[in-house]
Amino acid sequence: MLEQLRTEVLEANLEIVRRGLVLYTFGNASGIDRSSGLVAIKPSGVPYESMKPSDLVITDLDGKIVDGSLRPSSDLSTHLHLYREFPSIGGVVHTHSEYATAWAQAGKPIPAYGTTHADYFYGPVPVTEELTDEEIGGDYVLNTGLAITRRFKGLDPAAVPGVLVRGHAPFVWGKTPMDAAHNAVVLEAVARMGYFTATLNAACEGVSQALLDRHYFRKHGAKATYGQK
Amino acid sequence: MLEQLRTEVLEANLEIVRRGLVLYTFGNASGIDRSSGLVAIKPSGVPYESMKPSDLVITDLDGKIVDGSLRPSSDLSTHLHLYREFPSIGGVVHTHSEYATAWAQAGKPIPAYGTTHADYFYGPVPVTEELTDEEIGGDYVLNTGLAITRRFKGLDPAAVPGVLVRGHAPFVWGKTPMDAAHNAVVLEAVARMGYFTATLNAACEGVSQALLDRHYFRKHGAKATYGQK
Amino acid sequence: MLEQLRTEVLEANLEIVRRGLVLYTFGNASGIDRSSGLVAIKPSGVPYESMKPSDLVITDLDGKIVDGSLRPSSDLSTHLHLYREFPSIGGVVHTHSEYATAWAQAGKPIPAYGTTHADYFYGPVPVTEELTDEEIGGDYVLNTGLAITRRFKGLDPAAVPGVLVRGHAPFVWGKTPMDAAHNAVVLEAVARMGYFTATLNAACEGVSQALLDRHYFRKHGAKATYGQK
Amino acid sequence: MLEQLRTEVLEANLEIVRRGLVLYTFGNASGIDRSSGLVAIKPSGVPYESMKPSDLVITDLDGKIVDGSLRPSSDLSTHLHLYREFPSIGGVVHTHSEYATAWAQAGKPIPAYGTTHADYFYGPVPVTEELTDEEIGGDYVLNTGLAITRRFKGLDPAAVPGVLVRGHAPFVWGKTPMDAAHNAVVLEAVARMGYFTATLNAACEGVSQALLDRHYFRKHGAKATYGQK
Repeated sequence: MLEQLRTEVLEANLEIVRRGLVLYTFGNASGIDRSSGLVAIKPSGVPYESMKPSDLVITDLDGKIVDGSLRPSSDLSTHLHLYREFPSIGGVVHTHSEYATAWAQAGKPIPAYGTTHADYFYGPVPVTEELTDEEIGGDYVLNTGLAITRRFKGLDPAAVPGVLVRGHAPFVWGKTPMDAAHNAVVLEAVARMGYFTATLNAACEGVSQALLDRHYFRKHGAKATYGQK
Repeated sequence: MLEQLRTEVLEANLEIVRRGLVLYTFGNASGIDRSSGLVAIKPSGVPYESMKPSDLVITDLDGKIVDGSLRPSSDLSTHLHLYREFPSIGGVVHTHSEYATAWAQAGKPIPAYGTTHADYFYGPVPVTEELTDEEIGGDYVLNTGLAITRRFKGLDPAAVPGVLVRGHAPFVWGKTPMDAAHNAVVLEAVARMGYFTATLNAACEGVSQALLDRHYFRKHGAKATYGQK
Repeated sequence: MLEQLRTEVLEANLEIVRRGLVLYTFGNASGIDRSSGLVAIKPSGVPYESMKPSDLVITDLDGKIVDGSLRPSSDLSTHLHLYREFPSIGGVVHTHSEYATAWAQAGKPIPAYGTTHADYFYGPVPVTEELTDEEIGGDYVLNTGLAITRRFKGLDPAAVPGVLVRGHAPFVWGKTPMDAAHNAVVLEAVARMGYFTATLNAACEGVSQALLDRHYFRKHGAKATYGQK
Repeated sequence: MLEQLRTEVLEANLEIVRRGLVLYTFGNASGIDRSSGLVAIKPSGVPYESMKPSDLVITDLDGKIVDGSLRPSSDLSTHLHLYREFPSIGGVVHTHSEYATAWAQAGKPIPAYGTTHADYFYGPVPVTEELTDEEIGGDYVLNTGLAITRRFKGLDPAAVPGVLVRGHAPFVWGKTPMDAAHNAVVLEAVARMGYFTATLNAACEGVSQALLDRHYFRKHGAKATYGQK
């Protein structure tokens, strides 16, 4: 069980490297086994090239280390909060991928400018509020998670599988660790195309609700028509 | 016959991957054998790396599957409409290549800013009108094709071998599947240089009609002087 | 003699490919043997990957083919005009490298924004005037060369080894074919950094004359201090 | 002793090549052995591909060559000045990496737009004043160093390990040569994301002091929590 979770989480970590979302040891991916409530996460500051399944750290949903000799990613508390609050997700990925991070730094949500976006995100990719000095001075990593879930009040995390933490970078999730990594890769592409779009035409308002619906639901839900059955 | 068509269409699909126009399973290329009226197209959502000629789906011009066990690309109806309406073309390529997609998202045609453009596109690369909610809610994929051919009223698809579907992405065509792929690659380069040009000099109006003529006709038509005989 | 010239010109052609300045068969490099007045140039529209020294076309300074069975680059007359008018140069490179081409399309010279520029170009990289309809309709390729040399009245082609042809793309030269290719690669880097600079700070005026002098002359002329003796 | 320093400095030079910060022979890295006061630096204008440890030039802090048969980097005097004035540093890297250079050319400090920045630079990356004609005409390379240390009056070089020399390019430092190279790579990423941020939202003011503190001190100082112990 843990062996498979570790392998899947390692693969998700490697996917964000292969796709160019990572510089040095930046970023981290995790996954959860919902039956046991155990989470596997990248260790902190370890080079990706030499990472083995056994280097991943296993914790419970309260952050207690259950297995592994390394220190977990410093973003652990954010991951755990997302697993606790979003029961439908099975993987979380955090990167500083450059275009998504630029939108986060600019403090702007990424508008649904086109069908590529609509295929994955059912509406703009939202941006959190700025954390207060108290939130930053307190349990900062957990408070990052709280800012995310506060921002998602009224939003379905399964339909909008990612967020920009203002002044920081994206957090992305999915049904599995690899699904989260895949969404992180697409988010970066969407952020890049959105950057080009916004700088070409600052007045651009993005796709209609009808087009958003059409594209999102051709890839998701009971009536999906994309791919092989 | 079908073997050769399948091989050519597979090669066109791989060319758009090799040239960096594709993320994951995005995009698709097709080709037509005009003598039989049969079309070969990429299957939906299948990884490019493992794609074999036999994975390509063969349909007639009405979309009836004639050969192949996989589901065809979800964009099939757009391809077929283009083959029906543009008798001179032998291949169609659809990608979400990032700069061309940004122009499509911005809702702006790509002006003929220079000779690279003029060598391939005899005038701006046009952008379709936005689809109405009715068009999106109805036979959306076919209606995408109709929006393209409506936009080409008065334009020669052999002289302007591509279009931007507003809020979506480019469709590109050519005499053969590989020619369509080649045009898709050049369109992305032209879109990229056009983006840099527009953001450097928003007032730029592009080349004169004389320069457009000179470059287009040195590569196309009876008096072409480029390349080896 | 010709063997060595052919090898050097082939190497210059391959250098612009290796450095990412070339898409498909775009671009061309040539070189001249000043003692015989013979020029070697890339054949038109031939793939770089399979190019052999014997594919290069040898012409005299009037464009008469002296050796080689292929058709020379369609830009031959521009190259020859530059060799006739700029006696100090030994190689010419023409590319559609994307940032330099964007400046050419925008119709703007590249300002000497920094020391990287000053190390290679003693002042802005100039842009030609637009060609008239008569010039385009007449001997267009030669007229391109004439527009360049007209623009260089009062400029030293050894100190400013390149130009942007308006609405088209750069021509770059150097003491040897490889030197011209090297300058074309640096021009693209300078154009790229210049693009970022201009879009970050539209009011930027570039380096002082003193800094331009200092950097240019530390790499060029009798008092150069860069590199090994 | 010198063997190890040479190897470390060679590795730092190769790191900036591997990470895409270098075109041709641009850039240089050095390191100092504080016990002997000897500095190893890249030779001037030598290709990186063939560089051996023995090619590195050893000088004392006054620039007297102690070992090595090649001419040292033309930027030697700037490096030495930084070693003399910033006793906490062990390595210096100078590149013309393109986005950092664009900020230097634009004459703008890189604001602390986000946590990636804050993890490495405790505040904006500053830009020097323009050198006067006298400074340029005099001991230019030393005066570049003087402009840097003048700009750092009141700043801690250990907390802000890099600077933009106006109209020129970045100088970056660190505890070791490899640490300096690492900081130069991160500076380029920060400069790139900063460019995207500034062009998306010109009014962006960057992170709060509280967030700057939190991120900087989670990677630096006695209470650091990032990485393995």
